[in-house]
Amino acid sequence: MCIASLYFILLDMYPFFFFSFSYSGAKLALDSLEVPVGCVIVEDGKVIASGRNRTNETRNATRHAEMEAIDTLLEQWREKRLSTSEVAEIFSKCNLYVTCEPCIMCAAALSIVGIEEVFYGCANDKFGGCGSILSLHSSSSEALMSGGVPQGKGFKCTGGIMASEAVSLFRNFYEQGNPNAPKPHRPLTHQAIQ
Amino acid sequence: MCIASLYFILLDMYPFFFFSFSYSGAKLALDSLEVPVGCVIVEDGKVIASGRNRTNETRNATRHAEMEAIDTLLEQWREKRLSTSEVAEIFSKCNLYVTCEPCIMCAAALSIVGIEEVFYGCANDKFGGCGSILSLHSSSSEALMSGGVPQGKGFKCTGGIMASEAVSLFRNFYEQGNPNAPKPHRPLTHQAIQ
Repeated sequence: MCIASLYFILLDMYPFFFFSFSYSGAKLALDSLEVPVGCVIVEDGKVIASGRNRTNETRNATRHAEMEAIDTLLEQWREKRLSTSEVAEIFSKCNLYVTCEPCIMCAAALSIVGIEEVFYGCANDKFGGCGSILSLHSSSSEALMSGGVPQGKGFKCTGGIMASEAVSLFRNFYEQGNPNAPKPHRPLTHQAIQ
Repeated sequence: MCIASLYFILLDMYPFFFFSFSYSGAKLALDSLEVPVGCVIVEDGKVIASGRNRTNETRNATRHAEMEAIDTLLEQWREKRLSTSEVAEIFSKCNLYVTCEPCIMCAAALSIVGIEEVFYGCANDKFGGCGSILSLHSSSSEALMSGGVPQGKGFKCTGGIMASEAVSLFRNFYEQGNPNAPKPHRPLTHQAIQ
């Protein structure tokens, strides 16, 4: 195998490397009886923050993995006294790897902070904000352009990476039973619910 | 004036009473060189939480007034060890009074936590999630129903209360200059930007 081939193989493997960290977070969420979603934020090939769903632990239904990772990172940067423009500059070079398509709230938040690119696992057929229900990542989104300019600049987005593994985690979660679900759930088929 | 007339006058004044608290928060934000948006959350006629925009202070562009108020409240409830269903039950009886229409992210978050009703001041013509750009409050929202079910149950929403006061605060903000704006802004006319 020539070095060029090896280079391209490694390049193809690149997202999977970071997804392994995201899936670790999702498994940690599963072990904590949380909806199993995990993510990492990557800058210059280095994981600089991670997050997992903590909605049950915090009793806060908005504490999705992406919001956790964003807030962890911004707290670090606040302590380092980075300016608003420095924060925006770093975010514009950051990528997010998340096991499930960001919901509408998270997609809007990612657009607001100005993340560069998002890679996700399975689609979020009920609440997805990156193509499944709304396309908040797209700066030419019809829903947004009809009334004004999009919130933030939008971001590049690629889904379907290791999707079956993400669905499998959701299935495990609903099979073991969600102790905090208000009503009994029907078993999950292939819909990712965050 | 009969007692019945007085009753209806007081009933009409009810939202304005809570808006006065929201506007105090917005003015506090203005004094702190933040985009001037403030809100309160009301349960059974009592203000139980307040929030104001803290995006500059925290360097976190997602720390809108509504997210601040939600998180303050949920932190209190977490300390009281309320269960997820107890939290959901209280939220379903809470109203939010906010000086500017919630953005897409905040509208999604309010729907996720299951707030009962939202009253807002001026419209958010660029990013509004409660009618201006998207209608995430509406459980029959076309954008959502086309692909699935809405995230959360949606909530009742009334806008335009003391709107001119809210616009005036925005105008003051942009006239005094936003020290954290990445680029020079054009003066605000009547668009509410959060």
